[in-house]
Amino acid sequence: MEKQELLYEGKAKKLYQTNEPELLWVEYKDDATAFNGEKQEVLSGKGQLNNEISSLLFQMLADNGIPSHFEKKLSKTEQLVSKTDIIPLEVVVRNVVAGSLLRRTGIQEGTELDQAIVEFYYKDDELGDPLINHDHIRILQAAVPEQVEDMKAKALAVNETLQSHFQSCGLVLVDFKLEFGTKTDGTLLLADEISPDTCRLWDKKTREKFDKDVFRYGLGSLQDGYTEILKRLGGAAHD
Amino acid sequence: MEKQELLYEGKAKKLYQTNEPELLWVEYKDDATAFNGEKQEVLSGKGQLNNEISSLLFQMLADNGIPSHFEKKLSKTEQLVSKTDIIPLEVVVRNVVAGSLLRRTGIQEGTELDQAIVEFYYKDDELGDPLINHDHIRILQAAVPEQVEDMKAKALAVNETLQSHFQSCGLVLVDFKLEFGTKTDGTLLLADEISPDTCRLWDKKTREKFDKDVFRYGLGSLQDGYTEILKRLGGAAHD
Repeated sequence: MEKQELLYEGKAKKLYQTNEPELLWVEYKDDATAFNGEKQEVLSGKGQLNNEISSLLFQMLADNGIPSHFEKKLSKTEQLVSKTDIIPLEVVVRNVVAGSLLRRTGIQEGTELDQAIVEFYYKDDELGDPLINHDHIRILQAAVPEQVEDMKAKALAVNETLQSHFQSCGLVLVDFKLEFGTKTDGTLLLADEISPDTCRLWDKKTREKFDKDVFRYGLGSLQDGYTEILKRLGGAAHD
Repeated sequence: MEKQELLYEGKAKKLYQTNEPELLWVEYKDDATAFNGEKQEVLSGKGQLNNEISSLLFQMLADNGIPSHFEKKLSKTEQLVSKTDIIPLEVVVRNVVAGSLLRRTGIQEGTELDQAIVEFYYKDDELGDPLINHDHIRILQAAVPEQVEDMKAKALAVNETLQSHFQSCGLVLVDFKLEFGTKTDGTLLLADEISPDTCRLWDKKTREKFDKDVFRYGLGSLQDGYTEILKRLGGAAHD
């Protein structure tokens, strides 16, 4: 496999073409950003931790019958993924009230929801990634109704598997964000990453936060939090 | 009918009990507020204009088979309505892009939508009346799923009738906000008001704004705009 030209550089990852037209080379960066890019910092080791965690979680999902774009880990900070056309929606699943759900509903942080909820956000930095409903998705032509239903069902299935996995590691999966893409044959595939950048993860007993909120709200060392998550997932932190 | 104690005072209306337990006495106020109460002013004659317009529109809807809480106009600024338990949701129907839809989607103001869209907002001043989706409505216990579907269907039916009525008066119904309540027997009923405070109405040819945006954005005299709407609806402005 050969790493070729840079196709896209996002806030947390770089995407390269390969000599295989259906495969992309992903490099996880050390950049941390929050509040739509208002807060940013380079945190050494973050890219490696996210690549490790994301690889472990995508592999675990595959072992549980949930496919994704993940093909294999290439190095400490790199992985190989299937090429998809990313749908410009962030699909958020929530089990416990935190973050914007608190500000939107006034329900107290930490309240456990009887049943998971799903939200769709429009991926648009200039608009601040706003919450949208099914009608907005239609007029934005971001996805067709069947894809919306498919993403919702797949997101809830991912939640079931992730939640019980984290539970067994002593972690509460508060909420998380997924992205989906379509393959050239039109198939919808789970894409992007699953990491502490995109999940809220709390200690089951102490409710200590180990995820990106540590960086957002200056609660301590992000790397310590992410290392703790990797350790609990059974992964080995590289030097 | 006897006007009894004040039950509730909102931004634009006062609600009084009557000697009939199932009927309420509504008084339209001259207060104008915008941006969640940040901008406010007393605009003499506004209450009367909204009472006239709302009475005409509720009557027109009734004539077209769409019932509401409206019973009858009592005076220049007052009307009698059925008592309902208001559902804490604002149901917004949009035919043309304006206001928050522009900020949410980036679609240009004035773009006509192929098909009307419906949005639900949570009525909560402290939270700034946020947009919510069906899952949020569930966890907030604001309404049950059947009521949500019922409100959506009724809002679209109101839109059909209002849109063609305004069209025949040379006005474009850009968008509007409805509220619903439940009667003691559980029936869902259209409530609140339908006025230039709650609808965006533009001149069909010139696209001049005649609604509350005139006040929001300081575009001229609100009363002139509302008077123009009343005139086009065939109502008589009182002295």
